[in-house]
This record gives sequence, C-alpha cells and structure tokens, in this order.
Amino acid sequence: MDVYEALYTTRAMRRVKTDPIPMEVQAKILDAAIRAPSGGNTQNWRFMLVDDPDIRSALGPLYRDCIDHLWDTVYKERIEAAGADPDTPENKATSAMIRSVEHAAENFAEYPLFLFAFQHGDGSGGSIFPSIWSAMLAARAEGVGSSLTTVLRYKGDVVPELLGVPVAKGWMMSACVPMGYPTGRWGVAERIPAHHVAYRNTWGTPIGFEVNKPLWS
Amino acid sequence: MDVYEALYTTRAMRRVKTDPIPMEVQAKILDAAIRAPSGGNTQNWRFMLVDDPDIRSALGPLYRDCIDHLWDTVYKERIEAAGADPDTPENKATSAMIRSVEHAAENFAEYPLFLFAFQHGDGSGGSIFPSIWSAMLAARAEGVGSSLTTVLRYKGDVVPELLGVPVAKGWMMSACVPMGYPTGRWGVAERIPAHHVAYRNTWGTPIGFEVNKPLWS
Repeated sequence: MDVYEALYTTRAMRRVKTDPIPMEVQAKILDAAIRAPSGGNTQNWRFMLVDDPDIRSALGPLYRDCIDHLWDTVYKERIEAAGADPDTPENKATSAMIRSVEHAAENFAEYPLFLFAFQHGDGSGGSIFPSIWSAMLAARAEGVGSSLTTVLRYKGDVVPELLGVPVAKGWMMSACVPMGYPTGRWGVAERIPAHHVAYRNTWGTPIGFEVNKPLWS
Repeated sequence: MDVYEALYTTRAMRRVKTDPIPMEVQAKILDAAIRAPSGGNTQNWRFMLVDDPDIRSALGPLYRDCIDHLWDTVYKERIEAAGADPDTPENKATSAMIRSVEHAAENFAEYPLFLFAFQHGDGSGGSIFPSIWSAMLAARAEGVGSSLTTVLRYKGDVVPELLGVPVAKGWMMSACVPMGYPTGRWGVAERIPAHHVAYRNTWGTPIGFEVNKPLWS
C-alpha cells in the first residue's frame, strides 16, 4: 500500500468483526511499531497484545465506565451543545463520534485484539505515540482497523493489575488500541484544511498555499 | 512509496543540505499531518513552517543552549557511561546519537525548514504526535529528512515569543521538526526486537512469535 493511502485513510475504525487476526499480521504490526523513533532512542517502551477472552471480558465494563466518565466530564459541554443544536456541521461531527465510541463501549469485549502500550515514567509523554501510530498504519496496510484510546487510564489502578503491569517499577499504561477487521469501508476523514491551522514564520501569517481538497484521494 | 518502506526507514535524519523544500512538497507534508487522528477529533492543533533566515538564525543559539542543558541533566549519566566504557553496543549507540544531535546543535540555523506543532493546553499531551509523525512519514516519501525534538520547550518563554505564539490564550509548543534533503542514505535503524519488548495478555508472558530481523528490508 502507498504510504499516502495509509496516512489518509487510517481513521478511527471502531466497528469491526470478531474474526481473529493472524499471528503473522500481529508480528507485522508490532515490528512496524518498534521501528518508530523514541526520545533519545531510549525505546523505553513495552507493548502487550491481548486476545484472551477472560481479560477481554474484564476490560469491557471497565471501558464502559471510563466512557461514561468521559461523557460526564471532558465532553459534557460538547454533548449538550450537540443536543441543543444538532444540525451544525460541528455538532453533527460530535454526534457521529459519540455514536462510534458508544458502539465501542457496548462491544468492547468483542474486539478480537487489543494493543496496549506502556512507558517507563508517568505514561503521559508523547514519545511513545509515533510507535502506536506506526502500529495503526501497519494494521491499515494489512486491512485491520483500529482506534486509539487513553481513557482506560481513568482505571489506572484496576487495568494495570488485570494485565500484571509492574507499576511499582515505574511502568505506566499510555494507550490502548482495539483492533479488528472492519465491517465498513475505509475513507478519507474530513479535516479542517491545512491553511486554516498552519502559519508561516509567525503566528497568524498565512502559510502561503491553500489545500482545499485532500492531496491524496 | 510503500507504507512499510516509510515506516521502516524514517529515522532521525539530522545531516541535511541547505536546499529549500519546494512549496508543493511542504503542502503534501502538512496535508498528511492534518489527516491524522486527534483525541475526540478535536483537531486542537496549529502548525507553523519556519523558513525565514532571521528566525532560523535566532533559533540556532536557543537550540544549542537547550542541548547543552539536556546533556547536563537527562543524559548526564548515559554520557558518563559512554565515556567510561565506549565499546558496548549501548554506549556506542549513545555516542552516535550524541554526535548526530551535536551536528544539529552546531548547524541548527542551516536547516532550510522547520515544522513546529502546537497544542491548546499544556502542550505535553500525546494527541498531537500522530500528526507530527505523519508529517515526517510524508516528508520521507518526498525524500525529505527530518527529526523530532521537544527540547526547545526548555526555552518556553523565548521561542514562543519569537514565533508570536499566543501563550496567554493557552497555545503551547509541543515539538519542532527540522527538515531538509539528507546528505546521507536512508536505512533501517536497529531496534530491540519486538519479542523482547512485547508480551501477550499479561506482563512477562511471551508474545508468541520472534522477529529476529526486520520484516521489511
């Protein structure tokens, strides 16, 4: 697959089948992840693939709780705005995102595979995210859908215990990537165009070009 | 370019030519960046391309200071270890990394282009890193080398002022990516193999496969 196809069509894919992901595909995804850069090339990371049915069943209600907490806090205003005025483009996008995440929350234990990423330290650093994004791009190349969530960190006591993470030694969960073969189709996600969110040399100065439709499609 | 070639060969490329990067290549890099996911699809980001000679000249000594600070703090132990026992694989890797970063520190103002990324909030979140990594992968596809640095945040007062960042409105610098056409060659970086840094279902349980050489080469 062309790199641009991967970069343009790897969007949050939360509606997936329960079919297992073959071992050789899992190996490709993980080997792509560890090729990514890390701060000072410390490779201060650990990954975990979770496919055990009991652990997946235990994760389901934990994720459900985390999402309920998310809706009640960070997204409270956006959800209320979308309810009050459902037809603006922004509020439609919010509602679509919420439906997608609700699907994940209702079916979390059904994902055939989860990729967890851990960092040494407080787990909040950005240094591990290139590797996670590389894993998601490699998954896309293999036809595997994924999405990225950090909300399980709300259960920072229970989830690490479930997975046996040595928290006392400084290992912290950074993110979780549920994976599976999509039920729907890949596509290019709508985004605010580059020239609306990018400047040249100083803040507010136009970037010098306009990109009014995706440069790959 | 195949997505795996990009994922496997996009490594920190700090030795670059001063040749400018054409506008249409810059547009491809930025348009790839904004296709990346962000937390809740908020797209709570701004990017800046810096090619102005005066701003680049001002950035040079600031980066130099940040690197000196980095060597004196975070990397102090690793540098001393590398000096004391220079021939271990780990210490050789440290020394190579330091030489590469020193090259950047001595020639920072000569990079023809910098991509800065900003987030609303404290700038430390991971949510913006997929977009930065997408920009670096697209740059790779166009033959442009890059590296990722967050050290300019040590100059969190001076650099934002230089670039006119509205810090009072909550915008913070997350990272800086110097770019340019490489003087050297692309290659697959050595990494600790996946099966040494990945587990299955619980911490410490073998992942179930071994990847003893890169699955793409």
